[in-house]
Amino acid sequence: MTTTTLNVKGMTCNHCVQAVEGALTELSGVERALVDLKANSVAVEYDESVVTVEQMTEAIEDQGYDVEA
Amino acid sequence: MTTTTLNVKGMTCNHCVQAVEGALTELSGVERALVDLKANSVAVEYDESVVTVEQMTEAIEDQGYDVEA
Ligand SMILES: [Cu+2]
Ligand SMILES: [Cu+2]
Repeated sequence: MTTTTLNVKGMTCNHCVQAVEGALTELSGVERALVDLKANSVAVEYDESVVTVEQMTEAIEDQGYDVEA
Repeated sequence: MTTTTLNVKGMTCNHCVQAVEGALTELSGVERALVDLKANSVAVEYDESVVTVEQMTEAIEDQGYDVEA
């Protein structure tokens, strides 16, 4: 299990928080996700043998947000 | 409920992660805590009417880590 923090642009409210956390935790291999709305970030705990940062990025972008490198 | 991300110095392994997350989630008012070991940070979801950042900082420092402003 490892953890990373992704920078997410466009989150403005608690619905955005739920959308991003929900999209991430639905991915198999993602254990926990915690959005910091003010910091425009999401901390993610995941199993790197199961899911990649690319897949997490895609899941967030599918919700309409941008992930910055 | 609000969220913040604190910078924590001195965490080196999963025991540190457990110590910091455990100290935070034991505080009443703290809902969730997720350490990013590589980023030296912890994202915390908490009820600001119940617990303060100062109390969270103290709880982390009691475990032997430094919290940076
Ligand atoms: Cu929103
Ligand atoms: Cu340690």
